[in-house]
Amino acid sequence: MARIVMKFGGSSVADAESIKRVARRVLRAKQDGHEVVIVISAMGDTTDELMDLALQVSPQPAPRELDMLLTTGERQSAALLAMALADLGAEARSYTGSQAGVITTSSHGNARIIDITPGRIVSALTEGNIVIVAGFQGVSQDTKDVTTLGRGASDTTAVALADAMDADYCEIYSDVDGVFTADPRIVPGARRIPEISYEEMLEMAANGAKILHLRCVEYARRENVPVHVRSSFSDKPGTWVKDINDMEGTAMEEAIISGVAHDRGEAKITVVGVPDRVGVASKIFLAIAEAEINVDMIVQNVSHVSDNRTDISFTLPMSDGRKAIESLRAIQPEVDFEDVLYDDQVGKVSVIGVGMRSHPGVTATFFNALAQAGINIGMISTSEIRISVVVSADQVDDAVRAAHSAFGLDAEGEAVVYAGTGR
Amino acid sequence: MARIVMKFGGSSVADAESIKRVARRVLRAKQDGHEVVIVISAMGDTTDELMDLALQVSPQPAPRELDMLLTTGERQSAALLAMALADLGAEARSYTGSQAGVITTSSHGNARIIDITPGRIVSALTEGNIVIVAGFQGVSQDTKDVTTLGRGASDTTAVALADAMDADYCEIYSDVDGVFTADPRIVPGARRIPEISYEEMLEMAANGAKILHLRCVEYARRENVPVHVRSSFSDKPGTWVKDINDMEGTAMEEAIISGVAHDRGEAKITVVGVPDRVGVASKIFLAIAEAEINVDMIVQNVSHVSDNRTDISFTLPMSDGRKAIESLRAIQPEVDFEDVLYDDQVGKVSVIGVGMRSHPGVTATFFNALAQAGINIGMISTSEIRISVVVSADQVDDAVRAAHSAFGLDAEGEAVVYAGTGR
Repeated sequence: MARIVMKFGGSSVADAESIKRVARRVLRAKQDGHEVVIVISAMGDTTDELMDLALQVSPQPAPRELDMLLTTGERQSAALLAMALADLGAEARSYTGSQAGVITTSSHGNARIIDITPGRIVSALTEGNIVIVAGFQGVSQDTKDVTTLGRGASDTTAVALADAMDADYCEIYSDVDGVFTADPRIVPGARRIPEISYEEMLEMAANGAKILHLRCVEYARRENVPVHVRSSFSDKPGTWVKDINDMEGTAMEEAIISGVAHDRGEAKITVVGVPDRVGVASKIFLAIAEAEINVDMIVQNVSHVSDNRTDISFTLPMSDGRKAIESLRAIQPEVDFEDVLYDDQVGKVSVIGVGMRSHPGVTATFFNALAQAGINIGMISTSEIRISVVVSADQVDDAVRAAHSAFGLDAEGEAVVYAGTGR
Repeated sequence: MARIVMKFGGSSVADAESIKRVARRVLRAKQDGHEVVIVISAMGDTTDELMDLALQVSPQPAPRELDMLLTTGERQSAALLAMALADLGAEARSYTGSQAGVITTSSHGNARIIDITPGRIVSALTEGNIVIVAGFQGVSQDTKDVTTLGRGASDTTAVALADAMDADYCEIYSDVDGVFTADPRIVPGARRIPEISYEEMLEMAANGAKILHLRCVEYARRENVPVHVRSSFSDKPGTWVKDINDMEGTAMEEAIISGVAHDRGEAKITVVGVPDRVGVASKIFLAIAEAEINVDMIVQNVSHVSDNRTDISFTLPMSDGRKAIESLRAIQPEVDFEDVLYDDQVGKVSVIGVGMRSHPGVTATFFNALAQAGINIGMISTSEIRISVVVSADQVDDAVRAAHSAFGLDAEGEAVVYAGTGR
């Protein structure tokens, strides 16, 4: 017998029939002898519809009240799932995030979990109930107001509950079969990854893979909660996300690259003709930070010898483009750079794998594949287990396919890694 | 400066525009210098839609979960109103019933308010906020589960909060201008009643007037909370419901009858040929009570001399008709009555007024008016301040008009009361 947290996303509970299907699946887990805790998202497009309603009432809805409004979506689906389970003869009880003891900061719309005090739901569980918790929400520690954890954060609720309740593992159900070596819509030969380390999954999530919320993976890694990503529409196994030391050896040894991620949501800003003096770059990124913009990749060219000026490029979420340019224009007189260029016709392609640590030549293989496909590289950044490039938006698909193939990730494919001098 | 509780029903907050209109109205009250607490119902048909969804998931939704589901409707409208007020520059905060301290029994779907601990909302109010409370809901004292007070019980929430917070009065806003001397759809000359005693309002509510929930009036009377029933679509004064000793004298002295109420929701059951022995009637009504049916009027005829049997008739909610007949059939062998007759083609018409206490002849006036209109009386029941008759369903409108006119309630009309020997 295991204690399992199962999380179902909005597409899994889009209507009454879907809710009943989820109920049958949950009941099977319970009948298999497990203790079952369910975390649930709002039905289908409910959150978007509530947001539309809020915007009809106020162009900038008060954050505390927006949280009060949006959290009703998960409460509805949680109650409906409990009803469906009761209808099947199961004992089930739904709880709001607050009732389940999800204590957060008071940052409305983007609160962080501080603590979970699951006494009430642990009691319900040990009394034999199936426990259903409304995802995405909690209660603020200081003001006792209802908070939300940000869009998509029901995954985080699930992992945090699994940790707080000493669950054996956490299952994240959605409409896809697991984590794939690349987006199957771009690469038809993409394969499901049976297991992947927290670190690789973090890089995948941070670099465009939408399947798991970044904060959820961070939480799972920090607390070492095994996560099983799988489909609510089939019984097939999905992808296990776990500690690298708990992984099956074979898969790791074989794969150099676990997957290829891509992200079309970023834009590139280049600050042209920046005086190459101490403290100038810091002024630029301070201005960006003060505008609460998260910068991703940063590249600084070597200085032009002639005038001792340089160019600094960085990427950022496309939605923050306008704000960033305004911030930079505001400090232009002081910093004395020459111009700001903005380009949102870009995309980021990343190859990710812990295998690259011990395999030299990964960079050469990646770049050669891109060159063969006629793709120009705009920016480069790397981590221990990732290489990312920025390319033109219209070449993202080609770049993903080229990399996927070059690293032998295509079904039946074979890796061709350059023996070289490391990357 | 007064402390006011204002309650808005579902039709007053049916869409974003309505919510904004309510916000402007609430803000005016605040700007007039009042402390303002709002109790709000779910938007338009939200509660019905949620109920439909529940029935799609389960034919008999688990009561605890149904309460969890239905209470989201008021939480949504409360949050939306707070946003609309914030948009107008006001400080407003919404609270669930639980957060507002509405402590109830754990009878899901029909919980009773046990206590209100309004510390949190009183603090918010004295800090200058407009406080918005989701109506119709609370939290159970023993299990801390979300409860509902039954359909239409947002009125009760409002009055209970007004009492607990020592508000000066409670305003109930809806889509009608107040309490009328009769239903204006039946009697075009019906007039708004400027003020009415709790007792009369109780009789009106209990006898078919839909404007205020019966439990709300009971609560207001018990705790002596003045209630102002008015329209959210105009600034006209409505009807004040208050203690009879606080009413303006003139209106009272003049009016014998305050209003004419009618109810088409009842049916009549006649148990024929009941043995006229001690304990038989008690067996009949015990069976009805065990089926959880509330009986309204009861009439027992004098015994037939020939066979020492009698007939007992009573009225009950039409929706309980089938259940009542089954209960009676079940005890027929034991009680040995002859037959059960059921008639749902009936209606109840009541004339109500504290004035009738000191005016003899009210009954004669009422019955004469009915006779003149060719209406046969099926059953009669009376209280200190009410006379009710059961008539054929197709004669209800005529009976209401005849009574309204006979007691001089028509605009510009004049009462013609029989000088008689009391009623």
